[in-house]
Amino acid sequence: MHQLVVTLDCPDRPGIVHAISGGIVAARGNITELQQFSSPDTGHFFTRIEVQGADPAELETEIAAVASDLGARFRVDDATRPTRTLILASKAGHVVNDLLFRWRGGDLPIDVVGIMANHDVLAPMAEFYGVPFTHRVVTAESKADFEAEVRRAVGEQDVELVVLARYMQILSPELCAFLAGRAVNIHHSFLPGFKGANPYRQAHTRGVKLIGATAHFVTSDLDEGPIIEQNVVRVDHTMDVAKLVRKGQAQESQTLAEAVRLLAEHRVLADGDRTVIFR
Amino acid sequence: MHQLVVTLDCPDRPGIVHAISGGIVAARGNITELQQFSSPDTGHFFTRIEVQGADPAELETEIAAVASDLGARFRVDDATRPTRTLILASKAGHVVNDLLFRWRGGDLPIDVVGIMANHDVLAPMAEFYGVPFTHRVVTAESKADFEAEVRRAVGEQDVELVVLARYMQILSPELCAFLAGRAVNIHHSFLPGFKGANPYRQAHTRGVKLIGATAHFVTSDLDEGPIIEQNVVRVDHTMDVAKLVRKGQAQESQTLAEAVRLLAEHRVLADGDRTVIFR
Amino acid sequence: MHQLVVTLDCPDRPGIVHAISGGIVAARGNITELQQFSSPDTGHFFTRIEVQGADPAELETEIAAVASDLGARFRVDDATRPTRTLILASKAGHVVNDLLFRWRGGDLPIDVVGIMANHDVLAPMAEFYGVPFTHRVVTAESKADFEAEVRRAVGEQDVELVVLARYMQILSPELCAFLAGRAVNIHHSFLPGFKGANPYRQAHTRGVKLIGATAHFVTSDLDEGPIIEQNVVRVDHTMDVAKLVRKGQAQESQTLAEAVRLLAEHRVLADGDRTVIFR
Amino acid sequence: MHQLVVTLDCPDRPGIVHAISGGIVAARGNITELQQFSSPDTGHFFTRIEVQGADPAELETEIAAVASDLGARFRVDDATRPTRTLILASKAGHVVNDLLFRWRGGDLPIDVVGIMANHDVLAPMAEFYGVPFTHRVVTAESKADFEAEVRRAVGEQDVELVVLARYMQILSPELCAFLAGRAVNIHHSFLPGFKGANPYRQAHTRGVKLIGATAHFVTSDLDEGPIIEQNVVRVDHTMDVAKLVRKGQAQESQTLAEAVRLLAEHRVLADGDRTVIFR
Repeated sequence: MHQLVVTLDCPDRPGIVHAISGGIVAARGNITELQQFSSPDTGHFFTRIEVQGADPAELETEIAAVASDLGARFRVDDATRPTRTLILASKAGHVVNDLLFRWRGGDLPIDVVGIMANHDVLAPMAEFYGVPFTHRVVTAESKADFEAEVRRAVGEQDVELVVLARYMQILSPELCAFLAGRAVNIHHSFLPGFKGANPYRQAHTRGVKLIGATAHFVTSDLDEGPIIEQNVVRVDHTMDVAKLVRKGQAQESQTLAEAVRLLAEHRVLADGDRTVIFR
Repeated sequence: MHQLVVTLDCPDRPGIVHAISGGIVAARGNITELQQFSSPDTGHFFTRIEVQGADPAELETEIAAVASDLGARFRVDDATRPTRTLILASKAGHVVNDLLFRWRGGDLPIDVVGIMANHDVLAPMAEFYGVPFTHRVVTAESKADFEAEVRRAVGEQDVELVVLARYMQILSPELCAFLAGRAVNIHHSFLPGFKGANPYRQAHTRGVKLIGATAHFVTSDLDEGPIIEQNVVRVDHTMDVAKLVRKGQAQESQTLAEAVRLLAEHRVLADGDRTVIFR
Repeated sequence: MHQLVVTLDCPDRPGIVHAISGGIVAARGNITELQQFSSPDTGHFFTRIEVQGADPAELETEIAAVASDLGARFRVDDATRPTRTLILASKAGHVVNDLLFRWRGGDLPIDVVGIMANHDVLAPMAEFYGVPFTHRVVTAESKADFEAEVRRAVGEQDVELVVLARYMQILSPELCAFLAGRAVNIHHSFLPGFKGANPYRQAHTRGVKLIGATAHFVTSDLDEGPIIEQNVVRVDHTMDVAKLVRKGQAQESQTLAEAVRLLAEHRVLADGDRTVIFR
Repeated sequence: MHQLVVTLDCPDRPGIVHAISGGIVAARGNITELQQFSSPDTGHFFTRIEVQGADPAELETEIAAVASDLGARFRVDDATRPTRTLILASKAGHVVNDLLFRWRGGDLPIDVVGIMANHDVLAPMAEFYGVPFTHRVVTAESKADFEAEVRRAVGEQDVELVVLARYMQILSPELCAFLAGRAVNIHHSFLPGFKGANPYRQAHTRGVKLIGATAHFVTSDLDEGPIIEQNVVRVDHTMDVAKLVRKGQAQESQTLAEAVRLLAEHRVLADGDRTVIFR
């Protein structure tokens, strides 16, 4: 039996849930989980609905008719179909290994179609997990070529989610626009925040007691896309910079994996610069 | 404008959300938040819906008609009306002070109508916060009288929530039944659990690294009612039993206050021995 | 029997622990807890030692002799004597109530000698807890007078710790210097950090998932003194700005109380812009 | 330059730190970190000291002389030498992968000399990480043979730490005694605890809000050895038993890795049924 996920957002007004649930009844579906949020800030309505028993095409037709009336964006996804995912990587293996192991262990509802990297050090890891791996040196000159390959891979392989797993290269505004709403990045986070180079050293100098990580949508505004997930861990004065880095990396792995899970389960909707997360 | 909360549960079947939202549309309400859960274990449907713009009586009439068709239990509450709350206490002030301060600070949507205690040590605290305080010694002989007073207070003052704030007396099965679904208790919790007297000493002897607290509905099965909220805190070998107790008490205060908030916001529904919490 | 706490720091070199422990043996003390840290960054040595059985004056004499050889700063405190504490407050009661309740409940080893405020709204709370309360309107003109009163209170009442419990006024550089190392402040913290007015609104706009609080030593560099303690709490898209503020305030109360406890137990030593915390 | 770690415990009395630090001075060592704890319950003294600059053999000789006077157990370890570690595994890969990846990433100061398993499913993982892997079916008849192999491996390969990474077999009392103080196990933990089969199902039935994991020393008293580390994670009513299991497994991986790190850094000392952890 199909387990379908409807996500929909539109300007708020009375009667939306009644209209959508009418479409679901018409498609002979049963709602097993429904979450809804109306943003008082933007006057926008968001919902995520899990539906059993309906035929996917029939449900899509019904929801499309309702969405047309509401001026809504919507998707109907099959919850049992893994999200097709492309990983962009560099040298750092911690987040990549975490993603691949969770995927292979059935903990992440994704299908990793490939890893594209600007270094070859992760080739053995990709081979172990049975994932196609391509790499090419990315320079100012070759960057456009690499990005063209990413776009081609996304198109040819029906990629739904691109994960920047410590990819470390700034994407061009064009690629950011192309991937809008379907690419996630991870970076370290601090209280208070630190500007400039080597934030772990600055955090050490200031003696912070917590360090963390933030997963967010990729936008052309570097490290400033809508936030999907954040975590912190406690640190203390005995830890040198190298240890802070290791602690931070563990947070990065865990936080990115959680963000990927939320995205792959269709739990993240954009509300301007914010995200609505239906956990 | 009214901000109403509909909570409803019934046997699951297709079309429930459509039926309820139809009632809300008929009462000219707008859904601002909706959460729904269908339990695969019990085949039961649960929902919590926040509605703006509808007249309370009109909404109640519409939902009652739908509920009758569905065989559903339901409530329509006014989210802006504080939950009328009676506190049962003994000598320990930590959880009582926490509740009263949060309430007076506007952090808990309750109205504390009184404190009933089996000791008088908390009388000055009650006076400071401006809460009627009654106490009487509770013995095997006078217990029935005290419980009769509790029942009378609940009836006369339209009490919706009874909070056992370290009350330390076992309620009679009759009073538990009378308060079913509207009384919350707090107790300490450990990993692993410890049977018998002085669990903090046992936890110290075993060198546990985490201690916690559990807030649960009051049932006649002592300390075993459906769980509403749990928290833990890290402890270590340097802490003596007295310090473990203090750490545990802080968890009790915080956990009970959170449970009271969830109850007062009508976010807790019973699913047999479990709770469905719409946060 | 006396329970004494020796805290000492000096330039690192071999033999320091042996020298100090020799002084303790000479004073017929027994070490019940010792923590030590040598900072690789500053080449500085820090220790905190709990000693039983020694006479305070005799121990002080012995440690002073050793400290003289080592070029060390040191203190010998009686762990059973509460730290004399002055609270500076304004209108906000949440952190003040938290401190007073924990103190009266025996959870904080302090003695609150008074509350000085620039508003009178907390007078009833101070009265309930039996704490002398003074207030005066603080304007640009009267600020110097108020600060002079603070200095006088610190001197006359042997105040060892000044707690800015959401005092909200910027202290003059002179008062900061006068209170150096013995005044603690609390402020909210965010990942990422936000500059400018109304950070909770900015945090809401950016949809952050964690908000927190930082307790730090007071320095003339506003909100930038050495960090003593930090905490965060999870927030989500359903929370409006008012709720973020309440969540943040609860973190402030808890974080400041923990910092005060660390200070009152003589567990915080300064290492330049950082702190060494012996928990 | 050697970075040495002295761990020592003995009956408490005045002058111990002075005596030990005298030995360190005699060996021309510099103390870079010292932690000490005297248990009021057992009257026992514990310390962990990091020493730079001393020759290992010379330090060992000096400490041995002091320890003889004190009636102390002690070890002198080289902090830069990884702890030789043997993993016992079964079919579950989550904790094994976590250990191997952290080890290969430089996050755990261990050297994994081999994996011994009662199933072959983890052979590819071992091969990927370059770890010798042996397996044999363990039945009532072959159990003694398998345990003899474990003892032989421990002896021949100078194994200092045996990690039961979801090994799932009960060790014989003889093997437990042989591995006393150098074998660590992991198991799930609940608040409240559940006796009997399928605790995740029981936890689901009771609707617990937290589940966790406990790492402890292996003793013949199953799942009851001295506790080294514990963690919990929040769960809710929407999670079915399978999801609770996955959440619990993530806690197991993280908790066991942290326990192994504490052990490999010589931070865990036994105090009867409790542990003293110098973090």
